Amino acid sequence: MDHLKAIIIGAGMGGLTTAIALRQAGYEVHVYDRVRELRPAGAGISLWSNAIKVLNRLGLGAKVARIGGQLNGVSYHRHTGEKLNDFSIKPLIEQVGQRPYPVVRTELQQMLLDTLGADCVTLDAKCIGVEESADRVTAIFEDGQTATGDLLIGADGTHSFVREYVLGRSLERVYRDYINWNGLICLGEEVCPKDYWTLYVGQHQRAAVMPVGNLPDQPVGESRFYFFFDVPLPADTPTHPDGIRAELTEFFKDWSTPVQRIIAQLDPQKTNRVPIHDVNPLERLVRGRVALVGDAAHSTAPDLGQGGAQAIEDAWAIANALLAHNLGVADALRRYEAQRKDRTEQVVLWARKRGDMIHGKDPVKTQRWYDELAQEDGSNIMNAIVKTIQAGPLG
Amino acid sequence: MDHLKAIIIGAGMGGLTTAIALRQAGYEVHVYDRVRELRPAGAGISLWSNAIKVLNRLGLGAKVARIGGQLNGVSYHRHTGEKLNDFSIKPLIEQVGQRPYPVVRTELQQMLLDTLGADCVTLDAKCIGVEESADRVTAIFEDGQTATGDLLIGADGTHSFVREYVLGRSLERVYRDYINWNGLICLGEEVCPKDYWTLYVGQHQRAAVMPVGNLPDQPVGESRFYFFFDVPLPADTPTHPDGIRAELTEFFKDWSTPVQRIIAQLDPQKTNRVPIHDVNPLERLVRGRVALVGDAAHSTAPDLGQGGAQAIEDAWAIANALLAHNLGVADALRRYEAQRKDRTEQVVLWARKRGDMIHGKDPVKTQRWYDELAQEDGSNIMNAIVKTIQAGPLG
Repeated sequence: MDHLKAIIIGAGMGGLTTAIALRQAGYEVHVYDRVRELRPAGAGISLWSNAIKVLNRLGLGAKVARIGGQLNGVSYHRHTGEKLNDFSIKPLIEQVGQRPYPVVRTELQQMLLDTLGADCVTLDAKCIGVEESADRVTAIFEDGQTATGDLLIGADGTHSFVREYVLGRSLERVYRDYINWNGLICLGEEVCPKDYWTLYVGQHQRAAVMPVGNLPDQPVGESRFYFFFDVPLPADTPTHPDGIRAELTEFFKDWSTPVQRIIAQLDPQKTNRVPIHDVNPLERLVRGRVALVGDAAHSTAPDLGQGGAQAIEDAWAIANALLAHNLGVADALRRYEAQRKDRTEQVVLWARKRGDMIHGKDPVKTQRWYDELAQEDGSNIMNAIVKTIQAGPLG
Repeated sequence: MDHLKAIIIGAGMGGLTTAIALRQAGYEVHVYDRVRELRPAGAGISLWSNAIKVLNRLGLGAKVARIGGQLNGVSYHRHTGEKLNDFSIKPLIEQVGQRPYPVVRTELQQMLLDTLGADCVTLDAKCIGVEESADRVTAIFEDGQTATGDLLIGADGTHSFVREYVLGRSLERVYRDYINWNGLICLGEEVCPKDYWTLYVGQHQRAAVMPVGNLPDQPVGESRFYFFFDVPLPADTPTHPDGIRAELTEFFKDWSTPVQRIIAQLDPQKTNRVPIHDVNPLERLVRGRVALVGDAAHSTAPDLGQGGAQAIEDAWAIANALLAHNLGVADALRRYEAQRKDRTEQVVLWARKRGDMIHGKDPVKTQRWYDELAQEDGSNIMNAIVKTIQAGPLG
């Protein structure tokens, strides 16, 4: 269908990418977000090649390459420092035809926002109601304003209000039994290679750095990384009274020198501390003229690095479903749902399984994984990632 | 990859649709055709919903709807007139989300040409050579002119010259053992329902009409149809000395009144007489920076009505492959090939099998088909078409 008006709730990467895809096809789009200022939840995010292919297809390839980190290899180490494996991801890139880009979330969001244009976005607009008539749908905002269109897209994240409308119920997120700390850091080559995803694993914990795009005023000899730490803990574990650095120092006290360097050097004020949750796969992603995309549709643990990519795949899929079909909005949205439900459910469940393995849910399996990592030449890890990428909408 | 220049050889529906898709993505495109005037081979063509979805996605939905016939049902009859079945295609349309459009080929081509713009097309330019360097490809034309770009698309039909370059050999087309007559005709409701695909089958022959878009100056009470007749005959069967009407009268002499009406009323000067050929599935569709689309890649017998649709699917697939990937033109074209080779091979072989069944290659099977048609409530026929449609790139 041509020339529809789409109301998009949520200015995260799913909402903005959907808005860009629909606007390119001639739709009128407007994005509303409850926040006064856009501040994404995590510091960085890996966008595997399935996401980059969609951004390329939308003409954003050069823009994402500009903010993306050059990731050329992966290396796992035991927490004590012993190297378990070290491999180039060139075979993966050649197999799928596109390199991945780890990016800073605020920079990704700003790039999408600049592409869409700030005049298409209204902030400080909290959606508190959705009403459908036979041929229109209206979002009602807390300040009494409304917005009416042909369809409404709930891209309002893991705490989605629109999801409640679609499901007709509220839901509890599921705690994944670990806390994640993440942030950005500049490091020299003596700490870790500038183009590597370097991971330390042990004691059911994890510490890792992944290169993101450098800033123009980067210190000489240093590169910018997204770092994260995982520790299995109860969700309500209070932060150490002396702060984040103190608790990381305690949890990672036996860990090797590079890990200590990162802990010593990180900025505690700019480090996020996130008890990781996901959401059980939803029974539906669509109701009438309303569809969910991104975390609202499938909140995913970060253990596959596919959460953002799935939001971007959603954007391409919903644009294709709406534009290719002509039997009305509700019909097109059902086709979007049929295309995305199994794919995103698989990613949620697979990320969950992988998170459990990483974080010692069954210590025997985790030990087996450590042992396997020592045998790994990269092909098993890359094959799994390639499979996930190639199941995406652009092959 | 962004901002490439594509040289497209052939201004048929595959070449023009590919040019439109690539130009929308910011490519520089130019189309060359050997003819002085564009004259498509057949009078009409069925574009099943898989093709229309791609045209919709390219923003051409309203334009194709304007030239398309309103096809709402199908009815098979024995050649003597007895009705075998009669069913609405509404369930099919609802299942796939888009109605099909039978169209007049010249009108489809004109629509595509108007969309692309005549300044992107050079006629009277016969490609007689292709030369590749490390980073460019050049088409050489008979008049000594050349055109150089990043890639070259061979959309030059069933007698493709570019195919010879890609395969490194020439090939013989395969005669499908029947001759097809086709053209356009205006008929009143007393001959056949205006929104039906009406088919007469018997004696291993076939006669059919399919509604195409009406003209503004249509005679009152009449509708415009694409008609065709099939008769199993040697390829070199000479035309009846008294012309096409005489031979059709002879071949269809026992057939029912509507068939006689069509034969009496058709314009022999504007009726095509085509010994039907296809081409064995090719071992490759791509060489270096050169790719084949449409009939050049997979000449298909018309017995599935999927020849044109596959060309249009090719256009979408090649645009996606080029735009989503970043490892160079040759790499992207190999991905296009990987996506299209099996799909188009299946369509060629299935059309061949169906053509044999229709035209009495094994008279027992043809008789069984006639018997099955008498039992058919439409669901088997529609399920087969739905399956073909849903295997397309937009579901």
